[in-house]
Amino acid sequence: MDNKLFTPGPLNTKLSVKEAMLHDMGSRDKEFISIVKEIRHELLLLAGLSREEGYDTVLMQGSGTFGVESVISTVIPFDGHLLLISNGAYGDRIGEMTRVYGIKTTTLSYRENIVPPAQDVEQVLIRDKSITHVAIIHCETTTGIFNDIERIGHLTRKYNKIYIVDAMSSFGAVPIDFKSLNIDFLISSSNKCIEGVPGFSFVIFKVSSLEGCKGNARNVSLDLFSQWDYMKNSNSFRYTPPIQIILAFRKAIQILKDEGGISKRSERYQQNYNRLIEGTEALGLRTYLDKRDQGYIITSFLFPKHPNFDFTQFYEKLHDRGQVIYQGKLSDTDCFRIGNIGQLFVEDIDRLIAAISEVLKELNIEIL
Amino acid sequence: MDNKLFTPGPLNTKLSVKEAMLHDMGSRDKEFISIVKEIRHELLLLAGLSREEGYDTVLMQGSGTFGVESVISTVIPFDGHLLLISNGAYGDRIGEMTRVYGIKTTTLSYRENIVPPAQDVEQVLIRDKSITHVAIIHCETTTGIFNDIERIGHLTRKYNKIYIVDAMSSFGAVPIDFKSLNIDFLISSSNKCIEGVPGFSFVIFKVSSLEGCKGNARNVSLDLFSQWDYMKNSNSFRYTPPIQIILAFRKAIQILKDEGGISKRSERYQQNYNRLIEGTEALGLRTYLDKRDQGYIITSFLFPKHPNFDFTQFYEKLHDRGQVIYQGKLSDTDCFRIGNIGQLFVEDIDRLIAAISEVLKELNIEIL
Repeated sequence: MDNKLFTPGPLNTKLSVKEAMLHDMGSRDKEFISIVKEIRHELLLLAGLSREEGYDTVLMQGSGTFGVESVISTVIPFDGHLLLISNGAYGDRIGEMTRVYGIKTTTLSYRENIVPPAQDVEQVLIRDKSITHVAIIHCETTTGIFNDIERIGHLTRKYNKIYIVDAMSSFGAVPIDFKSLNIDFLISSSNKCIEGVPGFSFVIFKVSSLEGCKGNARNVSLDLFSQWDYMKNSNSFRYTPPIQIILAFRKAIQILKDEGGISKRSERYQQNYNRLIEGTEALGLRTYLDKRDQGYIITSFLFPKHPNFDFTQFYEKLHDRGQVIYQGKLSDTDCFRIGNIGQLFVEDIDRLIAAISEVLKELNIEIL
Repeated sequence: MDNKLFTPGPLNTKLSVKEAMLHDMGSRDKEFISIVKEIRHELLLLAGLSREEGYDTVLMQGSGTFGVESVISTVIPFDGHLLLISNGAYGDRIGEMTRVYGIKTTTLSYRENIVPPAQDVEQVLIRDKSITHVAIIHCETTTGIFNDIERIGHLTRKYNKIYIVDAMSSFGAVPIDFKSLNIDFLISSSNKCIEGVPGFSFVIFKVSSLEGCKGNARNVSLDLFSQWDYMKNSNSFRYTPPIQIILAFRKAIQILKDEGGISKRSERYQQNYNRLIEGTEALGLRTYLDKRDQGYIITSFLFPKHPNFDFTQFYEKLHDRGQVIYQGKLSDTDCFRIGNIGQLFVEDIDRLIAAISEVLKELNIEIL
């Protein structure tokens, strides 16, 4: 029996997803190619898009960060200028990429508990006409905050900018209206809310926004244009794909559809989240974020103010009970994180709450 | 029943390797971390090395090419100068990387059926003192040729150069004496002769040769120094690792050890190769390479000179029989390739030969 993972991914996946990996297949084999084709089609459907409407999708080997880097290093031309909106580690990571690649970047940086206001973005767009691209994280996994990709999307339309959304932790769990939000590039990965296993990321994009990007890439393996150019009709990869992970992902998409699609999965995650908040509040735990900004994917909890609280002990004792929570990642506040995505249900949340309650008692921590 | 893959990887793996993937695990979880530690230790042992002797290993998400790119883009400083020795597509791919990254490179380029002579390398090293690094492919999968990494290694010692060996298709199948060959960086991947499934690559290296490379990387995800710096003591990854692939890899290493290690696996592959040559010669098929240069990993066969031969038909009819061969990749000669690595045994080679014989008969191809 595997541990229950209350983490932002890798997650608990269905056994049938993992069982889909019990095969060997050649990467140039027609059977595998038809599976890649199916996945690319299904991803567009999940996003409410189609190739006929001018959208497409590319799979990229590696973790989610590899997918983000493939976008950042390919789609911004050498004379481009990125407006980066950051309120956490994942936004900052895009900043690290633009520094390494020497991409001109203006950063709107916020504390981790602030939703970046759209009017700030508008002011920058009015002031600096040289900006060509805007990038933001949808659900900043650092805290679990939901950023306002809607209003910022409308601004990118109004001011005619290319819009990049890192939806790593939200795609599959939060309905996203690509067309109304003017999204040009959205990145997510195999091991998040589609509930596959880790090994690749994917980019869903407006074809017209990638078509002109040939030769922009500052690297080889992560060249999104070349990956797409090679894959678009062949449905095969330039370099060896993670075959078994892709087989698992196909199964994961089927299960997501069986569950009722993104809206139903969203409901389940929200039920998990509500139960988590209810239960932790009853124990006296407090969230880092204001409730109105808190997403239902992952939640940051403040360390209880009690002399007996020691995170390592707390973590270990929960672990001994088969409950795996996640460390914090905040720059200046001690937190731990609890995710409620993956194959988790309210019963699992109840068991976690019971375990937390036990552990707090064992540590003689009473929170008032 | 999966097809038999006579390809250069992804390969047929043991069922127990794939079954090792039937688990979910957190990437920051101590159980997973201890598995990464074990794998890193075992890889060094397989290479005949240890951390005490100043060697270490790093796992890198993505395909083998990602691992090669992580080395090329990290270990050559901005004022470095690479001597690239190429006689095939994988050597040329390194050339593509150095072009994109603007790394000064001198290329010794050879026809695909020529083993680059060590004296040519020595002449360049004598003539151009500015060369700092030398890179070569061990088994060039384009043809299956074995390059002379021994003599070139001795030259890198004599002239004090950093030596990079792409041993993608050979590590695990060919004993390689790191120390005597003066290898600084060797790259291979999870889905080659260790017989795991695809999803990551690994680099085995002399610590003193990577230590000075901080800040060299021209990218973020593939920054080998940072990946090592983060992983060396923590045994965890900067970015989400392909958990299940790593679980499978651990099992694959155990199986390799049970088989008797690299020397025994080498014997099995050589038996496969010998049987393949025997059988194909009896059918009148001819290899592209001279026998003395041909490695025992993968073999390129010339298209039979017969008006009825059509590769697609030939491939399809073999595929219908569950036998998957591989397309050619030569710049100027029509070939197909047959690999004999992975869970393949002489009986499998016999079945393939029988299938080829049948298909040639069906296509009315008689080769004299």
